[in-house]
Amino acid sequence: MVAKVDVIVVGAGLAGLKAAQELEARGRSVIVIEARDRVGGRTMPGMIAGEVIDRGGQWVGPGQQLLLGEAARLGIETYAQYDKGNQVLHYDGTRRTYSGDTPKLPLLSLLELDRVVKRWNREAATLPMDAPWTALKALDWDAQTLESWILRNIRTKGARTFARLVTRAVFCAEPQQISYLFFLEYLRSGHGVEHLIGVKGGAQEAKFRGGAHSISRRLADSLKSPIVLEAPARAIAQTDEGVSVRTDKGTFEASHAIIAVPPALASRIHFDAPLPAKHDGLFQRMPMGSVIKVHVAYAEPFWRKAGLSGQAASDGHAFNVVFDQSPDDERVGILVGFIDGAHAIEMSAMGDNARRQHVIAALVDYFGPKAAEPIDYVDQDWTAEEWSRGCYVGHMAPGVMTLFGDQIREPVGRLHWAGTETATEWAGYMDGALQSGIRAAGEILIRR
Amino acid sequence: MVAKVDVIVVGAGLAGLKAAQELEARGRSVIVIEARDRVGGRTMPGMIAGEVIDRGGQWVGPGQQLLLGEAARLGIETYAQYDKGNQVLHYDGTRRTYSGDTPKLPLLSLLELDRVVKRWNREAATLPMDAPWTALKALDWDAQTLESWILRNIRTKGARTFARLVTRAVFCAEPQQISYLFFLEYLRSGHGVEHLIGVKGGAQEAKFRGGAHSISRRLADSLKSPIVLEAPARAIAQTDEGVSVRTDKGTFEASHAIIAVPPALASRIHFDAPLPAKHDGLFQRMPMGSVIKVHVAYAEPFWRKAGLSGQAASDGHAFNVVFDQSPDDERVGILVGFIDGAHAIEMSAMGDNARRQHVIAALVDYFGPKAAEPIDYVDQDWTAEEWSRGCYVGHMAPGVMTLFGDQIREPVGRLHWAGTETATEWAGYMDGALQSGIRAAGEILIRR
Repeated sequence: MVAKVDVIVVGAGLAGLKAAQELEARGRSVIVIEARDRVGGRTMPGMIAGEVIDRGGQWVGPGQQLLLGEAARLGIETYAQYDKGNQVLHYDGTRRTYSGDTPKLPLLSLLELDRVVKRWNREAATLPMDAPWTALKALDWDAQTLESWILRNIRTKGARTFARLVTRAVFCAEPQQISYLFFLEYLRSGHGVEHLIGVKGGAQEAKFRGGAHSISRRLADSLKSPIVLEAPARAIAQTDEGVSVRTDKGTFEASHAIIAVPPALASRIHFDAPLPAKHDGLFQRMPMGSVIKVHVAYAEPFWRKAGLSGQAASDGHAFNVVFDQSPDDERVGILVGFIDGAHAIEMSAMGDNARRQHVIAALVDYFGPKAAEPIDYVDQDWTAEEWSRGCYVGHMAPGVMTLFGDQIREPVGRLHWAGTETATEWAGYMDGALQSGIRAAGEILIRR
Repeated sequence: MVAKVDVIVVGAGLAGLKAAQELEARGRSVIVIEARDRVGGRTMPGMIAGEVIDRGGQWVGPGQQLLLGEAARLGIETYAQYDKGNQVLHYDGTRRTYSGDTPKLPLLSLLELDRVVKRWNREAATLPMDAPWTALKALDWDAQTLESWILRNIRTKGARTFARLVTRAVFCAEPQQISYLFFLEYLRSGHGVEHLIGVKGGAQEAKFRGGAHSISRRLADSLKSPIVLEAPARAIAQTDEGVSVRTDKGTFEASHAIIAVPPALASRIHFDAPLPAKHDGLFQRMPMGSVIKVHVAYAEPFWRKAGLSGQAASDGHAFNVVFDQSPDDERVGILVGFIDGAHAIEMSAMGDNARRQHVIAALVDYFGPKAAEPIDYVDQDWTAEEWSRGCYVGHMAPGVMTLFGDQIREPVGRLHWAGTETATEWAGYMDGALQSGIRAAGEILIRR
């Protein structure tokens, strides 16, 4: 099949779908091609114990106006993340419960943590929004790992542990994998660490009725443009006149293309002419995080009756961040959580049964013996997803942002780049994906 | 074309060619497929002022027994790298000349450098040869960049400058891009930093008559197996019975495959079934170094008459490591050198003329006004080579070796991995490429 349209969009995740919708709305002809047999990318539907769940991206927080607006436009409502009762912190081998936002750590650790978080936010605020690699201290910050920064700037064990837990939860990577500059840029883009990890007032404040994946689904359904599934882009050629994209479902031609996939996937496409060396250099250097998302269902949300919110965090177990995902009417109890960073790499290689046993053992530690009797279990290993190569998001090791970072949104002739990694706000989040699609579409629209 | 052989070798660099030769010699049927229109991979022929040169890998040092043996077997002689006269060090804005191996740095810097190099060698010696990620201090060393290590452990400006220069020269990357553990492992594999950067007694001691690329050429010519050029491997499928490799020149079938390309290229192949997540994780995280190799020819090697060896190093110019490449009879003078790391990224994006001007200006600073009158100029930008994606070698950022490193030589069913990145000695060098080809062939041979 050869079709000549204005724009080919590669990738039917939120970024690509939004780009297509923007272009369509302004009269451009579009074809969306997608490697998977479904739309949605890193958002993905699932079922547990008869309930619809998100196997991928899920939450929305205040300030994520694009995502909230898109959901509203598509008639999808939000509801609050369950947040009543006490949190569980499994720290240093001991289980503690606490209320409010302040984890139950030793006082000195809490005081230091407060200082550290303020410093992070202060430093992040100095980064130029569109070009963090030009910050005054960019070279210094980009020369070190977050782990080196932690070791040099944090003294108490509690604050160090917390910093590492946050890194894993936010990046699905270990602090030694992340440049301190990239870390700060992510905080800037996500409005600070409290926001990124918070429930009430933070990025986990609310969820979508029917699942976040239904935003992708409805956005796709609303398009007039064809979406060709199971059509991974293998090669993209570009001439003075246009682009052609070779897929497993034929070759498509257009005036422009928007590549709305993460750098680690764009890296696998054969470009002719080859990408500029620096651009390819970036694509070699933005690996995906490592995460397994797990849902466990129970006959009822028994933790609620015990005065617990269902939220747990741990420095000991691999299944180390947990939230309540039960339906409002409590017809069933569901917990959702994550195995991230090094834990995910290790547990991805493990058999399903062994992994499940680890998860249940952790839940028993957090919520008591009733957690030993699940009625259903679903996990989603994003590290093994060929068309994501990991989740939630690509990250940068030291040296990458200052040496290659300015390529992230740089068009290459008729090729434009989208995907949450390219966003300047809420990068790594669904909101950032939408922003990137709008921006990439705009780059093409202003050409005429 | 469909052909059923015992082994398909992907990549006709030294690793792949050697693997093919080993298999052939033991009666296995082999097909070698190669993306480029030539064999040799990161070795490559060139010409300047009528003289044959190596646009890629070039030198050989003592202890590189596999490479020396292979050259001898193929009837290729070695000759010494010209090393008479004084070296030029362009440091801190000033040109100095010196004789011997000790750069002309301030005394305190030299004393510290001596201590630092001894410490590196001592620490490198503690790494288990086949599994540096299991070293006692592996996690600590892998949590930091080499730049962080330099800032914390080196005090004098001269020693810091030297450490950074060495990093760029050896890895074609900046110290902030490299894990300190990976750095140590590279030193171990290459017999220490003095050896890696040395001429007499070191890795630049000798060269090959007719060029190192002629080893690849003759090795290829000696094979009975077909070598299919311009046949990039796009997809590799594996079943219980065998493997099939889809290329631009048709699909080939075999019992096993050896993938003899760097991780950054293997990463672009579509594997069915997908690689184990951890293996793919490594492939996302081993970017190539950045380097442009430059030859400049003059009517005569005028520097020799001025008592200079033609060797220069600089902390100021982008063209910062230079050697003499003139023929013995001095019928022409040739200098060869490198633009590496951040300099290469910057200069790759620059026009050819501007780059040449930079190079010549640097040579004038090193060797005087006669350097302003070249008779020929050839540069080879490896960062822009689609089928290398950089040179000399893939490197690892912090966290990669301890989290993903154990995948480097791990076969995946019927797929075996070669390429200098997988070598346990002389990784990154031609000798390591040969070792890897022999090892990968052996993995298949012992299966029967």
